[in-house]
Amino acid sequence: MNTNRQYILDKRPIGLPDDSTFRLIELDMPQLEQDEVLVQTHYMSVDPYMRWRMNDMKSYTEPYELGKPLTASAIGEVVQSKHPGFKIGDFVTGRFDWADYTVCSAADLERVEDTEIPLTSYLHVVGISGLTAYFGLFDIGKPQPSETIVVSGAAGSVGMIVGQIAKMVGCRVIGIAGSDQKITYLKEELGFDEAINYKKSSSIKKELEKMAPNGVDIYFDNVGGEISDDVLFSMNFHSRVILCGQIAHYNTEDFGMGPRVFPYLLQRSTLIKGFIVRSYSERFPEGRGNLSKWLKEGKIKCTENIIVGLENAPEAFRGLFNGENIGKQLVKIV
Amino acid sequence: MNTNRQYILDKRPIGLPDDSTFRLIELDMPQLEQDEVLVQTHYMSVDPYMRWRMNDMKSYTEPYELGKPLTASAIGEVVQSKHPGFKIGDFVTGRFDWADYTVCSAADLERVEDTEIPLTSYLHVVGISGLTAYFGLFDIGKPQPSETIVVSGAAGSVGMIVGQIAKMVGCRVIGIAGSDQKITYLKEELGFDEAINYKKSSSIKKELEKMAPNGVDIYFDNVGGEISDDVLFSMNFHSRVILCGQIAHYNTEDFGMGPRVFPYLLQRSTLIKGFIVRSYSERFPEGRGNLSKWLKEGKIKCTENIIVGLENAPEAFRGLFNGENIGKQLVKIV
Repeated sequence: MNTNRQYILDKRPIGLPDDSTFRLIELDMPQLEQDEVLVQTHYMSVDPYMRWRMNDMKSYTEPYELGKPLTASAIGEVVQSKHPGFKIGDFVTGRFDWADYTVCSAADLERVEDTEIPLTSYLHVVGISGLTAYFGLFDIGKPQPSETIVVSGAAGSVGMIVGQIAKMVGCRVIGIAGSDQKITYLKEELGFDEAINYKKSSSIKKELEKMAPNGVDIYFDNVGGEISDDVLFSMNFHSRVILCGQIAHYNTEDFGMGPRVFPYLLQRSTLIKGFIVRSYSERFPEGRGNLSKWLKEGKIKCTENIIVGLENAPEAFRGLFNGENIGKQLVKIV
Repeated sequence: MNTNRQYILDKRPIGLPDDSTFRLIELDMPQLEQDEVLVQTHYMSVDPYMRWRMNDMKSYTEPYELGKPLTASAIGEVVQSKHPGFKIGDFVTGRFDWADYTVCSAADLERVEDTEIPLTSYLHVVGISGLTAYFGLFDIGKPQPSETIVVSGAAGSVGMIVGQIAKMVGCRVIGIAGSDQKITYLKEELGFDEAINYKKSSSIKKELEKMAPNGVDIYFDNVGGEISDDVLFSMNFHSRVILCGQIAHYNTEDFGMGPRVFPYLLQRSTLIKGFIVRSYSERFPEGRGNLSKWLKEGKIKCTENIIVGLENAPEAFRGLFNGENIGKQLVKIV
């Protein structure tokens, strides 16, 4: 343990990040100040929103700084501590560098208390993905039994949890995803009522008309773009649209053009709400409590897709945008 | 009083209605059944939403039927009554035909109780326009003092009331309208802080950046289309968009294309809500109470634009779409 490998943002990408975006550097092991804790990363999460932070653009999070380490939601083990609240061997979650080791302020760490659930679930079902599904669905979607919900990006880490929670509520759940393997997975493993492979569908709109003959009450949108165009024109009166992700747009420089949906949505009294899970941070304990209970009861599952080795983190990140992976993408560091 | 003139929908229009859309017919005076009331129309309101109802298209209201009378919010005087609750000479509001006389069910009429306010105000400030402004602004916009609100269609009957209520709350109010005369009116008569003439502006976006240096917190949208594109890209974090009207689209057959705003609005956690004032009908007494109080106190004004003669109703209706009129468009029948 003499050096620490760390990925820095070397160049802001245009479009999909390539090798010039990332640089792996080696640093001496850091020295701790009072109240700091050194954490060895075990697993880190890669997520689409990171693409936004690579742009030099005002958003709800600060952009990553050039020449500085990229950061991620991660879970790891305390290996040095200058804070009485954390001792060596404790497992903690927080926002760590894309690195072997990160110096964290004790105030920014959360100790893993519940060891009955797998460590990695803190990065999906009981982590940001699960909380995003939970608050977006309940607080904006307000699902009622027998309502119809459409989830785009349904085989992604948020979408798969949204669909499973909606089934628990008693909704009819239709997923949209990008491969036959995902469609089978959603229907057979996760219990979705229907699923559409948008890469093979000649008309999502027509398929939806068949699958949701009474229209769509809730649309949990993880993707945006043309897929959403088709869903938005199927919304019911007093329907709700949760703008959770717009992955179709993350690698483009401008927002592009699409059909004007507002006149249609006005007529339907539709509610559309962009949201950021951080706005619900005061209610995270409630969300985590329910999510971990459902995980233990087997009511929610989450498939993981694990790439091994910090050096492969850029590849894991880029894989988010080609639509091939099922489930939560993680990088195992140690 | 031997005949009753009545406008029927003769042909569904494509684009802006022309003379073939409307036909004025003459009928014998109707006979009343039990619990019916015959009302002579004094003033009727023409409104953009009527354009939608001329299409054979499912919406929040039924389409007008071919060969049947067009209807409108109106105020009139009881001239015959077979219901004990209404007597000759009573003034009533309701949904009447575009006609000299309408047979109404007593249950569909509301008696004008407060005679301290002008009769015509029941068709704007304390009518549907005022209620639309009131519930859209308070229930969806939730304005706070010192927030910035942009109102499109600001010199229309809803827009002008929205701006005046927002000023009462303590907001910074920016109106968008289509003539210099309207701009002067909004700023000098109604106390708007700023107003933009979209027909002369080379960039609404740039003007907004100057007028709203801290961004836009609330957008009350009466128009849609390109004007809204510019406003939507100026929204603040946790901003609210009230989809009240989309007049830019009412005469087109398809919805057209525009910039994709959802990725931007997601990042701002923006709330967008289409709404129909009828959904608030249980709270109309609250809304009317406040609106009539503000009208009497001189806190809300509403300019009227009155065309005389039932035969001129189609012209009054078409005038809504050329952007020339200031204030509430009414037709005086008698």
